[in-house]
Amino acid sequence: MSKGITSKSEDYSQWYNEIVIKADLAEHSSVKGCMVIKPYGYSIWEKMQAVLDHKFKETGHSNAYFPLFIPKSYFSKEAAHVDGFATECAVVTHYRLKNDGQGNIIVDEEAKLEEELIVRPTSETIIWNTYKGWIQSYRDLPLLINQWANVVRWEMRTRLFLRTTEFLWQEGHTAHATSEEAIEETEKMLDVYADFAENWMAVPVVKGRKTETERFAGALDTYCIEALMQDGKALQAGTSHFLGQNFAKAFDVKFTNKEGKQDYVWASSWGVSTRLMGALIMAHSDDSGLVLPPKLAPIQVVIVPIHKGDEELQKISTFVDELLPRLKGYGISVKYDDRDSQRPGFKFAEYELKGVPIRLAIGARDMENGTVELARRDTKEKFTVPQEGLAEYVFQMLAQIQENIFNRALKFRDEHITEANSYEEFKALLETKTGFIAAHWDGTAETEKRIKEETKATIRCIPLDNKLEDGVCILTGKPSKQRVLFAKAY
Amino acid sequence: MSKGITSKSEDYSQWYNEIVIKADLAEHSSVKGCMVIKPYGYSIWEKMQAVLDHKFKETGHSNAYFPLFIPKSYFSKEAAHVDGFATECAVVTHYRLKNDGQGNIIVDEEAKLEEELIVRPTSETIIWNTYKGWIQSYRDLPLLINQWANVVRWEMRTRLFLRTTEFLWQEGHTAHATSEEAIEETEKMLDVYADFAENWMAVPVVKGRKTETERFAGALDTYCIEALMQDGKALQAGTSHFLGQNFAKAFDVKFTNKEGKQDYVWASSWGVSTRLMGALIMAHSDDSGLVLPPKLAPIQVVIVPIHKGDEELQKISTFVDELLPRLKGYGISVKYDDRDSQRPGFKFAEYELKGVPIRLAIGARDMENGTVELARRDTKEKFTVPQEGLAEYVFQMLAQIQENIFNRALKFRDEHITEANSYEEFKALLETKTGFIAAHWDGTAETEKRIKEETKATIRCIPLDNKLEDGVCILTGKPSKQRVLFAKAY
Repeated sequence: MSKGITSKSEDYSQWYNEIVIKADLAEHSSVKGCMVIKPYGYSIWEKMQAVLDHKFKETGHSNAYFPLFIPKSYFSKEAAHVDGFATECAVVTHYRLKNDGQGNIIVDEEAKLEEELIVRPTSETIIWNTYKGWIQSYRDLPLLINQWANVVRWEMRTRLFLRTTEFLWQEGHTAHATSEEAIEETEKMLDVYADFAENWMAVPVVKGRKTETERFAGALDTYCIEALMQDGKALQAGTSHFLGQNFAKAFDVKFTNKEGKQDYVWASSWGVSTRLMGALIMAHSDDSGLVLPPKLAPIQVVIVPIHKGDEELQKISTFVDELLPRLKGYGISVKYDDRDSQRPGFKFAEYELKGVPIRLAIGARDMENGTVELARRDTKEKFTVPQEGLAEYVFQMLAQIQENIFNRALKFRDEHITEANSYEEFKALLETKTGFIAAHWDGTAETEKRIKEETKATIRCIPLDNKLEDGVCILTGKPSKQRVLFAKAY
Repeated sequence: MSKGITSKSEDYSQWYNEIVIKADLAEHSSVKGCMVIKPYGYSIWEKMQAVLDHKFKETGHSNAYFPLFIPKSYFSKEAAHVDGFATECAVVTHYRLKNDGQGNIIVDEEAKLEEELIVRPTSETIIWNTYKGWIQSYRDLPLLINQWANVVRWEMRTRLFLRTTEFLWQEGHTAHATSEEAIEETEKMLDVYADFAENWMAVPVVKGRKTETERFAGALDTYCIEALMQDGKALQAGTSHFLGQNFAKAFDVKFTNKEGKQDYVWASSWGVSTRLMGALIMAHSDDSGLVLPPKLAPIQVVIVPIHKGDEELQKISTFVDELLPRLKGYGISVKYDDRDSQRPGFKFAEYELKGVPIRLAIGARDMENGTVELARRDTKEKFTVPQEGLAEYVFQMLAQIQENIFNRALKFRDEHITEANSYEEFKALLETKTGFIAAHWDGTAETEKRIKEETKATIRCIPLDNKLEDGVCILTGKPSKQRVLFAKAY
């Protein structure tokens, strides 16, 4: 482990990259734009997956798997959809390599595909083409399916976890008999995402709707959760789309309703990705490295012995051997690091960098006094704690840490939502104070576009719980009934 | 659900396809060679994944994720490896589509990649290229990593689960300081696979080594588990490869050993895939459909009420409401199917087709008598069982079914290993009795090839627990020290 990372106040972007690299979360691969998710990073993603997967199943969804490849022709059946994705698609044109006779491996031109295949950037088209065979009657509905998969969107400028050419995600694709049911599903899954972000990731989010400009390509309505990072930029952490009958019409998916009449099926789709890892890292971490909420930490507690000689170590280890099963009994994941190849100070820095929520250090003096030293990663406080009742104490401390991390992020977020009542005020705010800006907007794409071009701030969402309030658009002065949230964003 | 499937004695291949389709396990997608794994099939795969993943972690492995794409040049660094895979690779040549101005979506020729990317058929090359950055010293070893991923091998003739262009799998890739450790790992993971096949899938397997001809492209030694299907054909269910220093040399991965000297790293890789689904289906199922071992059945027990009118149903449901938590208390996954849209006979056939191990049927008479009707899927026996103590009874019955399914498959397998002592006997056996043939072979690739060409039988493996025995090769009469297992295979 190399020491020290760039301070986030000095260079936020560099700080983020160093945490990702030095905490062993991920790295750039030699394939342009693609990342390698390293074991420690992947173990956090696995915890996220497990919680989300459980929530999807609790809400009635089943997992399935659809092909990686989409025929080019399918991909263009929904007009808005192809416009949204065509420019960032990886295209498979051949299915064989060969030796050119001089020892070089080349693409075999004789093995050219009749129709090119697109590596899925999202799976609406291949899935709705499949659903056509699965749905005949209202009895086949609702169809509630999720897929865990890799997707590819060719990106010119990439950042680990936040924007990569290949990323991992889940995509839910549901089919319903009525528009109302599909909208209800869209909103339900947004709630699932918000609950996950706030109660597991400890990241407060604003639930809202995207403007027409920012909608998913092919959706009638896109709902999102928006989080605020410590540099005051917003990050879209999950989206849930009401697709209307667009894909059903594009792929001719009809059903016979209870009255015996044929109608097109109504759809939703929703997804979160490894981008959540980026949000998790940026929302909580500090200049010593990663800070993880206990509920998603692969190691919640690390125990480091501080000893001179084997006899002291043996005493400490005997104590730890009894402590471990007690901690595990509370469902706590714990690591005892008794490596003698590294000194305690090195280990302290390493676990700090990796965001382990609680560190217990135990020395000879502690053994005499019946105590341990407990260090909280979130506040960096240290306490001397009795060995008696330690497991229960640690268990409650983990819950406190989870709560504290969330409250701290919530306070930061709430302090960084500012109202602007004129375009001057809006622009001045963007210069001086980052975060969300709540401002009136006339509802037109033109105004949205001009503000974006002039300030780089976009409308993150129209919050769902918005209060109605008469006002005038900051740019055009036209009347407006509610404020929307602007921000610069990832 | 459409009734009736083709008998396996009539047309085994058709029988298999119909089970896959009618039990809702998978279907062909519209993308040539790629399958859609349907929710019921995927839920079995998820159970397999969970068990295997647990075993990998228990044996010290961590999961990680590497890119889907491999630069063409990496792919050809290990000579034997490229020879093995080049002819079946999907090639990405472009990264953008565009509108041709006449409303057609075409590949944008200006977005041609400088170097083509291969969709991974297996990940040794990209992973060893990455390991180069992770391994400097013996302290970094062993490196024990697994990846759950999709891979693509272009297949001209595909069969659901058994051979598809895209499939899901796990691939372990480990790095070690010594040859001995790498071989130990290779053998350990073979044992993990064999344990999984026998104790979860209830499929007996022969552990063995592949001949040089049948080795993985780039391996020094390939270990395998071979299972026997009910048509007497063998199926390779998992492989574990000792890669020597081949990939370390190809990607220049060296480490400093304890003595301070540089050496190339030693490697293993090992994998099982959705092909296991094919083995599971073919090993146990019958002419009524799928037969699932309880340990991998998504639904272990289904309860069907048999009633006239709502009053009877209500009594039965009251009883079932009390039974469900008791069954769940034993960790049993249970479904109560009280749909009134389908008759009991339809439900019976549906759950039989889907391989649910135990069906409980409860009618008005049962409620009077304090009994239920229990039907075993594996033997098709029916019993009248007291309601008192039912959960415990079902729990023990599930264990019995698991054991019975394994023993039945073991008996079949053992009855289908036959010795042949001459080529005539060998060929006659292939005509009259399917299964493994244990025969002497002179150890040459030429003999192996000629036997394969003349009979379509291949050497499945050289069993690990083989007894040594003097004999002569069935084809050439040359001396041989042990028998090897031949069979026609999937």
